[in-house]
Amino acid sequence: MSVPKTQKAVVFETNGGELEYKDIPVPKPAANEILINVKYSGVCHTDLHAWKGDWPLATKLPLVGGHEGAGVVVGIGENVKGWKLGDLAGIKWLNGSCMACESCELSNESNCPHADLSGYTHDGSFQQYATADAVQAARIPEGTDLAEVAPILCAGITVYKALKSANLRAGNWVAISGAAGGLGSLAVQYAKAMGYRVIGIDGGDEKEQLFKKLGGEYFVDFRKSKDVVAEILEVTGGGAHGVVNVSVSEAAIESSTHYVRANGTVVLVGLPGGAKCCSDVFNHVVKSISIVGSYVGSRADTRQALDFFARGLVKSPIKIVGLSELPDVFEKMEKGQIAGRYVVDTAK
Amino acid sequence: MSVPKTQKAVVFETNGGELEYKDIPVPKPAANEILINVKYSGVCHTDLHAWKGDWPLATKLPLVGGHEGAGVVVGIGENVKGWKLGDLAGIKWLNGSCMACESCELSNESNCPHADLSGYTHDGSFQQYATADAVQAARIPEGTDLAEVAPILCAGITVYKALKSANLRAGNWVAISGAAGGLGSLAVQYAKAMGYRVIGIDGGDEKEQLFKKLGGEYFVDFRKSKDVVAEILEVTGGGAHGVVNVSVSEAAIESSTHYVRANGTVVLVGLPGGAKCCSDVFNHVVKSISIVGSYVGSRADTRQALDFFARGLVKSPIKIVGLSELPDVFEKMEKGQIAGRYVVDTAK
Amino acid sequence: MSVPKTQKAVVFETNGGELEYKDIPVPKPAANEILINVKYSGVCHTDLHAWKGDWPLATKLPLVGGHEGAGVVVGIGENVKGWKLGDLAGIKWLNGSCMACESCELSNESNCPHADLSGYTHDGSFQQYATADAVQAARIPEGTDLAEVAPILCAGITVYKALKSANLRAGNWVAISGAAGGLGSLAVQYAKAMGYRVIGIDGGDEKEQLFKKLGGEYFVDFRKSKDVVAEILEVTGGGAHGVVNVSVSEAAIESSTHYVRANGTVVLVGLPGGAKCCSDVFNHVVKSISIVGSYVGSRADTRQALDFFARGLVKSPIKIVGLSELPDVFEKMEKGQIAGRYVVDTAK
Amino acid sequence: MSVPKTQKAVVFETNGGELEYKDIPVPKPAANEILINVKYSGVCHTDLHAWKGDWPLATKLPLVGGHEGAGVVVGIGENVKGWKLGDLAGIKWLNGSCMACESCELSNESNCPHADLSGYTHDGSFQQYATADAVQAARIPEGTDLAEVAPILCAGITVYKALKSANLRAGNWVAISGAAGGLGSLAVQYAKAMGYRVIGIDGGDEKEQLFKKLGGEYFVDFRKSKDVVAEILEVTGGGAHGVVNVSVSEAAIESSTHYVRANGTVVLVGLPGGAKCCSDVFNHVVKSISIVGSYVGSRADTRQALDFFARGLVKSPIKIVGLSELPDVFEKMEKGQIAGRYVVDTAK
Repeated sequence: MSVPKTQKAVVFETNGGELEYKDIPVPKPAANEILINVKYSGVCHTDLHAWKGDWPLATKLPLVGGHEGAGVVVGIGENVKGWKLGDLAGIKWLNGSCMACESCELSNESNCPHADLSGYTHDGSFQQYATADAVQAARIPEGTDLAEVAPILCAGITVYKALKSANLRAGNWVAISGAAGGLGSLAVQYAKAMGYRVIGIDGGDEKEQLFKKLGGEYFVDFRKSKDVVAEILEVTGGGAHGVVNVSVSEAAIESSTHYVRANGTVVLVGLPGGAKCCSDVFNHVVKSISIVGSYVGSRADTRQALDFFARGLVKSPIKIVGLSELPDVFEKMEKGQIAGRYVVDTAK
Repeated sequence: MSVPKTQKAVVFETNGGELEYKDIPVPKPAANEILINVKYSGVCHTDLHAWKGDWPLATKLPLVGGHEGAGVVVGIGENVKGWKLGDLAGIKWLNGSCMACESCELSNESNCPHADLSGYTHDGSFQQYATADAVQAARIPEGTDLAEVAPILCAGITVYKALKSANLRAGNWVAISGAAGGLGSLAVQYAKAMGYRVIGIDGGDEKEQLFKKLGGEYFVDFRKSKDVVAEILEVTGGGAHGVVNVSVSEAAIESSTHYVRANGTVVLVGLPGGAKCCSDVFNHVVKSISIVGSYVGSRADTRQALDFFARGLVKSPIKIVGLSELPDVFEKMEKGQIAGRYVVDTAK
Repeated sequence: MSVPKTQKAVVFETNGGELEYKDIPVPKPAANEILINVKYSGVCHTDLHAWKGDWPLATKLPLVGGHEGAGVVVGIGENVKGWKLGDLAGIKWLNGSCMACESCELSNESNCPHADLSGYTHDGSFQQYATADAVQAARIPEGTDLAEVAPILCAGITVYKALKSANLRAGNWVAISGAAGGLGSLAVQYAKAMGYRVIGIDGGDEKEQLFKKLGGEYFVDFRKSKDVVAEILEVTGGGAHGVVNVSVSEAAIESSTHYVRANGTVVLVGLPGGAKCCSDVFNHVVKSISIVGSYVGSRADTRQALDFFARGLVKSPIKIVGLSELPDVFEKMEKGQIAGRYVVDTAK
Repeated sequence: MSVPKTQKAVVFETNGGELEYKDIPVPKPAANEILINVKYSGVCHTDLHAWKGDWPLATKLPLVGGHEGAGVVVGIGENVKGWKLGDLAGIKWLNGSCMACESCELSNESNCPHADLSGYTHDGSFQQYATADAVQAARIPEGTDLAEVAPILCAGITVYKALKSANLRAGNWVAISGAAGGLGSLAVQYAKAMGYRVIGIDGGDEKEQLFKKLGGEYFVDFRKSKDVVAEILEVTGGGAHGVVNVSVSEAAIESSTHYVRANGTVVLVGLPGGAKCCSDVFNHVVKSISIVGSYVGSRADTRQALDFFARGLVKSPIKIVGLSELPDVFEKMEKGQIAGRYVVDTAK
């Protein structure tokens, strides 16, 4: 496998600055890294935040964004074991971690204070060749469609981890707030594959149809429902055992603390800058509920989320455009004109 | 054991109405109940709320309050097994539950929608003879001091349950916000007996001395500390693994979401009417913390909390007055003039 | 609902003695019991053990056996709450428990030392009218087929509980040893509904076909496989995460300790009198496996197992005969001539 | 820090061959390793097995044994982060693991199929300078006594992990079978620090005195007890919640399945070659007990076990001799003449 000296990438020099599609050098893997020829990369809201720099954590600059990259191993650092040239590999949000701190020791490596983040503190997948820590890089099963798997590498893993954080058993009711959006529609499928009974909350008939098609059991249209909380308490016989708040509306989150069952779990998973999660203490205590933050997945979550995808239990509807069109995608995303997931083809 | 026809009790006819110390009939145990000759009863803030009727849940009226009653079994319903006359028994907040709903099935009987509450929906321990469901009544080990054990029956069980809800292992750091108050000082002792390293947060040198005497390891005086959050992050090397918010200040609760460690647990346990628990979503998610409501204990929590007390690992400093003086105790409580726990002697 | 004074039942006076189909008085429910008009009852191997008296626990004598009875509530004890005449209700192995011991407190009521057992220490479901503790009686959802649900009341709950004891997550591999027998075929269906990937171990092509029809993923025919352990290690990429030993062969159990994955769980669920479970200590420790005994289910397990059935996720193939034919069923069972589950119609 | 070219070590060329105390080259750390100047090393039974080669896993040859080495970092591989020269570090049984397999992902790195083992497949701590994977090397807190901490690096971590595997809560009864031996006496101290109530089983008055001195609560002298099982069931009110079998006697292990409480856990932790763990299936199932294998600890277990030691909650009584005397120590060990832990001083 011959690796060129230069490659195409989308780079920006300053947060919010120009997104340049241009030639840059191909990076060299460090001793502990592999080099991945990225074929496709998903585009996530986080990429927009990284570009704008509106999160309370500074990005590397200049930066190549992207953290949902699927490709092929074309280089291997001298200290790496367990990978060979030609393996399928994925770039995900957590590029690498220290492996030795308390979070890493306990398999919570996403919470490592030394976390290195793809497309944020480490050049990401909006380029043809990207480096990743060999231990953290995602192992994509042979034969997987690299375009379709791309969004699983962040969106899929993230909702899967959120569902795990809801601490449910098969047969329990889980409510997905924002069930028919990009993250929500993945969450519905994972929830069904995990044996849960799925309630979707979203607005409009098209959304209801999509939700039902994906295997959801009961849809609450917040535009039509007289009382979302009462409706869910009724249909579930006492409240959902878990709730995954894909929607980041503060009101929707507070509402979820009322339709969750006693001893149930409300999961927060989106990252709206500056938003608050508020609950009534009396209700929180008397119902003994938990409100749990779920961040991105670990190596184990990654392996498991990819396994559900590879077994055909989760589909990821995507729209493919060229990497050179990334600035347009960002523009549409900012205007809220995107339904589903855009994936860029790094060869175009 | 001869049981009289009438007895002394403190009764009120309307919420906030006169607290009358007077003779009333001794109740008869139902088939599933035992009759307890209450010797001593603790006085809890909840009793004040029950009297005033300022919680979003109606009380029985007229009502005999009290839910920390320690006494002796003097009557046994015809359907009861496992109790004999002369056993020591306790009246606790959860007087009885249905045993058949989903909460009861899973040992979360405190969350039973049909819960019957002592001193709230069922006449409680501010009388000489009170009834309790035989399954839920607390089994007080033989030889226990009935005055000292009284506050364990609500305050002790409640903080013990809160500590369990923090989901810690021995050697972990737990912060107690409000460490030197009535509940806090019990929490410190239970935490130590459970093998945790205890940080106390409270104000003043006297409080620090009490905290240290009870076995606390590190005290943060919020009146003196330049930065409570920074101080705790520093001393624990990254944050407390768990926090029990005995203090019900909204600001203190929000602060606890910042000094808890990644993947740690913040426990809410007090019941301030109308208060909100607010967290920053970004921090909540990226640190993957849990905010958990902990209500009163189950039968298992009760047995365990009493066992720690009976083994001498937890002391409960009390002040004993006559039952007839209960109105004065309520007045002091309302004015915030109480440190430690008042216990009423029903014989006086 | 008029309840007659006498009824048909199958009774025996001594262990191993004559099984008489005759008229006996209809029992009266105690204060805490309901009276169930049993329509159908499954026949379980345990009933055979109870009759023979070959277990290390004495039966009541004379005894009406049976512990898989499905029927209708026709009488309610004076102390009972939460049931009304006409509700569907089930007699299960655990007729009642003390609700106050450490096992009961922790929702492990099946392990209560005061457990009262249907068809063993309490007259069971081989009669038209049977009593059951109101708290423990199974709540059968309205509209359920009473003949088909009967075997769920012991066989179904038992395998469901065994699967829970294997402590798996959706996507894990579970091996069912004895996958195509009566218990095994229920286990395969529950496992699939819980999101697990199912490996079946049994012998013969018919068994393989049944297994695949029920949703099993991979079948190991122990008559054809060169090496059962090696085959399972290969197909699962390192071993099954959990194993449920429905087969009670000592050799099969020991084998399961070798094809279970590191940190995985082997579940014992059958009750062969006198059998031993032996493991190699070196392998047990180095692979850090658990061997877990799983007994019958709790109220919560019962509710959940019935819910999977009511939702159509589990089918129970049965053969219905009259109660009067029970002695023949026992004879066939003893000769090992039974495939699937016999259900007796108490009206015949 | 100047590192010499050669050093003293104890080496053997063949399993069971001569143990030579001689000069060998100082190893160079790989890119991912640190070089530790071992000051002291504990001597463990496993070292005897490695020398003899009587386990079903081949050793490296020639081999420098030892896996309880405490020392100082004197060299750092180019790819290593998080260590600096002069840090205290420990060599433990798990020298390194792949960090990418399913076991490693889930923090069960001791079960990694690619595990590299100190003093077994990787030259160990019976030399003055040894290499260790930087991620797995133990972080010994500053100021720790390096001779006393040595046995904690295997014996201490191992019993601590076994206690965690017993899955107990503070206040539970744990029985230690073999409570007054080398491993047992550490187990008693850890158990006490974790808030458990400790029962010790061993033989003789001296052992009882040692047990009581270490904080044990109740001692069963198997030489004097009429019935060990009955005695433990009586004193614990139903059985120990957990048992740690430090003793590797087959009879003692089987006995522990009878004095463990319903739903309790029996832990296997020793590694006797060829021994079997046998339980009666009926008892195993009806009491719903677990028999769990516990191997050596993970990074997290190591950090935690060292923390208890550093806080003074666990003492490790040792006898120090020169490294050159190791053959004598092995001889005594083989003859069963050792009480407590030998530690070799690598400078002598």
